[in-house]
Amino acid sequence: MKRCVLLVSALCTAFSFSSQGQEKTLQEKLGYPRDAKLLIVHADDLGVTHSVNAASIKALESGGINSASLMVPCPWFPEIADYAKSHPDADFGLHLTLTSERVYYRWGPAAPLDKVPSLVDANGYLHHDWSAETHIDPKDVETELRAQVAKALAMGVKPTHLDSHQNRLFQTNKELFEVILRVGHENQLPVLIPRGWFAEFPFLEKTITPNDVVIDQVITMEPGLAPEKWNDLYRDALNHLPPGVTEFVIHLAYADDEMKAATRERATWGAEWRQRDFDFFSSAAFQRLLRENNIHLITWREIGRVMNAKPEK
Amino acid sequence: MKRCVLLVSALCTAFSFSSQGQEKTLQEKLGYPRDAKLLIVHADDLGVTHSVNAASIKALESGGINSASLMVPCPWFPEIADYAKSHPDADFGLHLTLTSERVYYRWGPAAPLDKVPSLVDANGYLHHDWSAETHIDPKDVETELRAQVAKALAMGVKPTHLDSHQNRLFQTNKELFEVILRVGHENQLPVLIPRGWFAEFPFLEKTITPNDVVIDQVITMEPGLAPEKWNDLYRDALNHLPPGVTEFVIHLAYADDEMKAATRERATWGAEWRQRDFDFFSSAAFQRLLRENNIHLITWREIGRVMNAKPEK
Repeated sequence: MKRCVLLVSALCTAFSFSSQGQEKTLQEKLGYPRDAKLLIVHADDLGVTHSVNAASIKALESGGINSASLMVPCPWFPEIADYAKSHPDADFGLHLTLTSERVYYRWGPAAPLDKVPSLVDANGYLHHDWSAETHIDPKDVETELRAQVAKALAMGVKPTHLDSHQNRLFQTNKELFEVILRVGHENQLPVLIPRGWFAEFPFLEKTITPNDVVIDQVITMEPGLAPEKWNDLYRDALNHLPPGVTEFVIHLAYADDEMKAATRERATWGAEWRQRDFDFFSSAAFQRLLRENNIHLITWREIGRVMNAKPEK
Repeated sequence: MKRCVLLVSALCTAFSFSSQGQEKTLQEKLGYPRDAKLLIVHADDLGVTHSVNAASIKALESGGINSASLMVPCPWFPEIADYAKSHPDADFGLHLTLTSERVYYRWGPAAPLDKVPSLVDANGYLHHDWSAETHIDPKDVETELRAQVAKALAMGVKPTHLDSHQNRLFQTNKELFEVILRVGHENQLPVLIPRGWFAEFPFLEKTITPNDVVIDQVITMEPGLAPEKWNDLYRDALNHLPPGVTEFVIHLAYADDEMKAATRERATWGAEWRQRDFDFFSSAAFQRLLRENNIHLITWREIGRVMNAKPEK
């Protein structure tokens, strides 16, 4: 809870600084006034299990979320790719994936195993985790990201943005961030870059180009908050949302047999965690908080248009 | 129904012929009299989904099945490998897998994609199906089978036998059968070879060596039988089981959300099919039929001992 509150205030400061500059803010480029509160309600991890797909599709169709990203190497990717193909207006990005973080249910890379040796364990799965001893070769990362993008395109997905499972590509080092940025540029896709991460990961700000679109903040649930405080945190965040562009990064699933089994070794980002997210973002209370706080929903598709617009003369 | 009845009678003939020879029958080598009715109750496809794992473990622990085989390339293989590791007495074989036959939920090979090009489609999944145009290179099959065996061993599974998902390695051609037989010999593991298949696939009998153990028949549900006739077929098969060694090849799962979604494009071997198998083989009626017909359960572990026993002097 503390971490999240601190994060929000740090971002407010960052925002104030940027809003005093001469340049148009992102919300202005998106056609809103400078003090507009813009929100992307974004579900991660689509493709990982059927339960995640089913809950995320339900939330998308009922207005609980308006954006999501897909894990290409995961077993249920074909189900969500098929949905994406038949719903071309859905705001689906690629949740570029370099880990297989569960114990009883796992997946390998999209690239051939022998082409990405530093990313896989002895059994051919993407690493469960990266320790200080894990040497991740940025060349392997580039090979794998290209394979994930190519596979998504081949299966009919037209992504609107790129982000990174477990933020590995954003919060590890400059070299890995350069890879996702390069893949984003080549595909003319915006990459999730929140100003709120710059203080902790200074290489982000040093690496981006003037063409990259920077949003203001990400708000996401972190481990440690008691389940009964869950809704309070989201309510407080919405009641105190600063002007600018915020992304809520949430994780949806049903707490059903599949999801409980897939995540049973730890509660963090587990079945109940995801059911709580689903319950809050599917609630009338969430919709009411959006209205009461005059929060406007935007998607990555619109941010992509800003990124790819020709500069004004 | 017709096909199954015909199959059973063809096998009775085959059995009669073999039982009149001078050599010891398999049931005698296993320590039973020549007229003993021996049965392996074998679940296929463990590892494919959590639902299959959960239902199969339940049936194994309650005596509904006494043997099973595992699909190494599938996403839930780690769950069943973990169970196998902690239950070293369970009679688990490897269900060597060359296809990924579903639509919304899929998997790739255990070997690197670029080492088994004839086995995978453009998206890196094992082929959905093999058509007349699919050229399956036996060298790729050998690479993939070795990778599956190596991965199972590395993850702590000590298999008791080998069989083949969708019978691809038994019912395609001599070259593919030679590969599974070779891998079986090298690992001193018995391979599922039922005499009942010899008439339709003559290369089987021509390829086996004197060391291979041949069982009498496989009984398995085929598409086309009305659900309400399901139990009748199994009951009739048990009431008319011939002496010799029979394997019931069954497919267990719960008809839950995961399984329904994973198999929703067709009913054959789907969620309801597997729930019906689970219900029959978990029933008191099945146990009663075993007793009433004086049917003894055996496992592949015992067959392996026969295969690897030194010849009598």
